[in-house]
Amino acid sequence: MKNIISTAVLFLSLPIFGQTKEDSIQFRRISTEILNKGKSYTELRDLTKNIGHRLSGSEAYEKSVKWAEQKLKEAGADKVWLQEVIIPVWERGTESLKIKAGNGKWISLKMLSLGNSEGTKGKNISGEIIMVKSLAEYDKLSSDQVKDKIVFFNYPFSQSYVLTFHAYSDAAVYRSTAASLTAKKGGKFAIVRSLSSAFDDVPHTGAMRYDKDIEKIPAVAIGNTTADELETLLKSQKVTAKLNSNCGMKGEKLSHSVIGEITGHKDKSIILVGGHLDSWDVGEGAHDDGAGIVQSIEVLRTFKNLGLKNNHTIRVVCFANEENGVKGGQQYGKTVKENNEKHLFALESDAGGFSPRGIALEMDESKIKQIKSWSSLFLPYGAYDFEGRYSGTDIYPLKDMGIPTAELVPDSQRYFDIHHTEEDTFEKVNRRELLLGATIMTQMIYMIDKHW
Amino acid sequence: MKNIISTAVLFLSLPIFGQTKEDSIQFRRISTEILNKGKSYTELRDLTKNIGHRLSGSEAYEKSVKWAEQKLKEAGADKVWLQEVIIPVWERGTESLKIKAGNGKWISLKMLSLGNSEGTKGKNISGEIIMVKSLAEYDKLSSDQVKDKIVFFNYPFSQSYVLTFHAYSDAAVYRSTAASLTAKKGGKFAIVRSLSSAFDDVPHTGAMRYDKDIEKIPAVAIGNTTADELETLLKSQKVTAKLNSNCGMKGEKLSHSVIGEITGHKDKSIILVGGHLDSWDVGEGAHDDGAGIVQSIEVLRTFKNLGLKNNHTIRVVCFANEENGVKGGQQYGKTVKENNEKHLFALESDAGGFSPRGIALEMDESKIKQIKSWSSLFLPYGAYDFEGRYSGTDIYPLKDMGIPTAELVPDSQRYFDIHHTEEDTFEKVNRRELLLGATIMTQMIYMIDKHW
Ligand SMILES: [Zn+2]
Ligand SMILES: [Zn+2]
Repeated sequence: MKNIISTAVLFLSLPIFGQTKEDSIQFRRISTEILNKGKSYTELRDLTKNIGHRLSGSEAYEKSVKWAEQKLKEAGADKVWLQEVIIPVWERGTESLKIKAGNGKWISLKMLSLGNSEGTKGKNISGEIIMVKSLAEYDKLSSDQVKDKIVFFNYPFSQSYVLTFHAYSDAAVYRSTAASLTAKKGGKFAIVRSLSSAFDDVPHTGAMRYDKDIEKIPAVAIGNTTADELETLLKSQKVTAKLNSNCGMKGEKLSHSVIGEITGHKDKSIILVGGHLDSWDVGEGAHDDGAGIVQSIEVLRTFKNLGLKNNHTIRVVCFANEENGVKGGQQYGKTVKENNEKHLFALESDAGGFSPRGIALEMDESKIKQIKSWSSLFLPYGAYDFEGRYSGTDIYPLKDMGIPTAELVPDSQRYFDIHHTEEDTFEKVNRRELLLGATIMTQMIYMIDKHW
Repeated sequence: MKNIISTAVLFLSLPIFGQTKEDSIQFRRISTEILNKGKSYTELRDLTKNIGHRLSGSEAYEKSVKWAEQKLKEAGADKVWLQEVIIPVWERGTESLKIKAGNGKWISLKMLSLGNSEGTKGKNISGEIIMVKSLAEYDKLSSDQVKDKIVFFNYPFSQSYVLTFHAYSDAAVYRSTAASLTAKKGGKFAIVRSLSSAFDDVPHTGAMRYDKDIEKIPAVAIGNTTADELETLLKSQKVTAKLNSNCGMKGEKLSHSVIGEITGHKDKSIILVGGHLDSWDVGEGAHDDGAGIVQSIEVLRTFKNLGLKNNHTIRVVCFANEENGVKGGQQYGKTVKENNEKHLFALESDAGGFSPRGIALEMDESKIKQIKSWSSLFLPYGAYDFEGRYSGTDIYPLKDMGIPTAELVPDSQRYFDIHHTEEDTFEKVNRRELLLGATIMTQMIYMIDKHW
C-alpha cells in the first residue's frame, strides 16, 4: 500500500441540520477524546498483568473488586459502592488426562476440566473411550454400550456461520450437558471437543451444569487438533483414558459487584453500562471480559472529561460471577426490583474488545426503530448493525423486567479462537479496536441520555 | 460470555425472490466453500514462512514468482504466464543510527532506512539534530539554520481519524519528501517519525522519492517511542546523530508479474482481481500484501471448485514492484493498451487481510449506484461500505483508462501498527478474517460477472 493521497469521501456527506448536527459534533468530540486520551487500554494492561485471571471466589477476584472501585473513583464517579452477592465457589486444582492406545504408553493430553465440573477427588478414573459426533448419534447408544465407558463428544464448531456466536450457540449444548448425558447411561466421565474456532490444541473451559438427581461425573475439554488426533486413533484401535482431577464446588461465599455512577442533572432514572469483572481461571480474562469493564469505565470518564452534562444518572456496573453462576446479574436485578429503581436503558459489553460493528437491541420495535433512525450518525465510526437480538447475560434479568437492553457488537471472527483459554491475554487486544468500542458505547449512551 | 442460545435474527429476513434469491444462494455457497475449504490461509503460511519478505529485485522475489505460478496452476487456472517488467533494484545493506547527547556516549537507535533512499556508502555522517513538528515549522527555517544539520521530522500519525488510512495519507508527505526538503537547505540527512499507529519503537520503512536536481541525501525512520524519547532529549540538550548505511539504488533488472486466468464461457472480456507479490525487505509481507495475493488466487479457485461457470474471463494478477516503483502495475496497463484487451472491472486487495467491511469503488456514479443496489446481499457477510473512493495502486493505470476499479475495504484499525515493519508476519493474520475477505471478493466478482 502506497502513499497516494486518498480521494475518499471522508464521511457520508449528507447535509445535516439542527439537532442531528449538534449530535454529530458531540459524536466527533467523543471519538477524538477516546481515541487520543482514552485510558481503557492502559487500564486493561493493569488489570490483566497485575491481577490476571479472576474467577469468582478467588483472591484475585477480590483484588479486582478493589481495583474497579479505585478506577471508578479515578474516572470521576460521584458515588462508588459494592453490592453484596452470594457466589458459588468452584476450584480447579491439579488435573491430568492421559490416553493409551492398544498396549502402548500413557500419553498426556492438553486439557481443562469444564467449569463447575466435579473431579475425581485425586483418584484415577479410567475406561475405554467411545466417540460420538452428535447428540443424535449418542441417543442411539444403549446404556449397555455406554456403561463404564468414557464418552468423547466430538461435535465440531461450525466454520460456516459468518457470525461466530452462531457456531458457539450451535455447539454449546455439548459443553453444558455432556456429563449428565454420560452419567444417565452409566458412563464414567465425558470428554468434550472445545467450543473453538481455532485449529490448535488449546482447550477451552466454560460453564457446564448437572441435571437434577443425576450422578455428578467429571467433564473435560480438549482442543480441536487433540480431538482430531484422538478421532484418528479411535478409527483403528481401542483407546483407554485416565483422568485424575481435583476440581469441584466448594460451597458459597460473600463477594461483590462494583458500582459507580454520575448523578443525573435532570432526573435520577438510570442508564446502565457494564460488563463482568470475573473471568475464567486461565489466561488473563482480557477480551472476556476485562475489555467490557474498562470500556464501561471509559464511558463514565468521557462524560466527565467532556462535560457532557448527563440528564439521567449514568451507572457503571462491574458484575460479579457471570462465568459460573450469573449471581451478580441476578442480585442486581433483584435489588432494582426491591428498591424500585427506574432504569431507562442497560448496555453490556461482553463479546470481546474487537473493532465494533454496532449494538444489538432487545426492546420493543418502536424503540429499535428510533435507534435505527440514528444510524447515519454512527456510520462514520463503523457501526451499522442495530438489529433486534440477544443483548447480554448480566442484564438479562433487567430485560425480563421490561427494561430496554443492548449489547456492543464487536467483530466476532477472532473471539472463539481464544475464548475461555490461556490465550485470552492482553496481547490479543488491539488498542484502537478497544477504544473504538468504547467510543460507540459512549455515543449510544449519549443519544439515549439526550433523546429518551 | 455464556452459552445462552442466541435469539438472533440470523440474517435480514426480507423476502427475496427470483434473481436476488438465486444470487443469495450462490453467495452462501461461496462463503461456505471458502470458510470451510479455503486454502488462502495455508498458502499464506507457505509464502511467508518458506519465502518470507520479497522485495523486487531480490532472490526471494524471484522465488515468489515461481511460487505464484505454481499456486495459480494448482487453483485451476486454464492459462498461467509471466509478464516481463523492468524493475528498479534497491538494496538495504548494513545500517546504523547512533545519537549522543551533550558529552555522553553514543547510543544506537532502532531504525530503518526508507525505501529508495541512498545511504552513506559505509562512511559515518554526523551532525547536530534539529527537530521540526510540521512542514510549516520547517518552512520557517533558513538555510543557515539547516546547513550541516540532521533534520528530525517529528510529525505525529493522528489517532483522531476512525479510518487509519486517512492518518496515513495525512502524514505520508513527511516520508516521501523529508530527504529533498533537508537537502534543499543544506542538511546532511533526515530522520522521520514512522507512519505508525502503534506506541512502540518499531520503525516503518516505505517508499521515499528524490526531487529532480537535488542532492540525494539519506532518510531514515524511527519508531514512535524512539521519536518521543528523542524529542524529550532535544528539549534539554544538544544531540548529535551519526548515520552509517549502505543502502541505495543498484540499477534495473528484468523481473515479472505473474498472471493466471480462467477463460470466459460467453466472451473474452476480462475481470481482473489481484494484489502485489512484492513486499518490503523486513518482516514477512503477510498483510502487505501476501494477503491480497492468496485472496485473489482463492477467488479463481472458488469459481473452479463450485463450478460457477464464469461468463467473462477471470484473471488473477500478482503485480511486481508495487512497493518501490509500481512498475508491475504500469507495465500491465501498457500491455492492456497495446493489446487492446477489454477489461470489465478490476479489483485489488492491498489494505490488509483483516475482517472485511466493504469494497471501495472508483467508477461512474451509475455503476456505483448499481453495486449499492446489491448491498443487502452483502450485509449478512459484514460488508456494508460501497462508497466511491480510491481503489488501489497497481490498478490505477487501468482506472486512468476508464476501467471501473475497486478495492477490498478491510477493517483498518490494526494495519498501521505493523505496515512495512518486521512485525508484518503471518501470526498477525487471522484465518477467518482472511477467508472472509476472500469471500466478499469472490461474491463481488460473481455479481460483476453475472450482471455486467
Ligand atoms: Zn501493499
Ligand atoms: Zn464474558
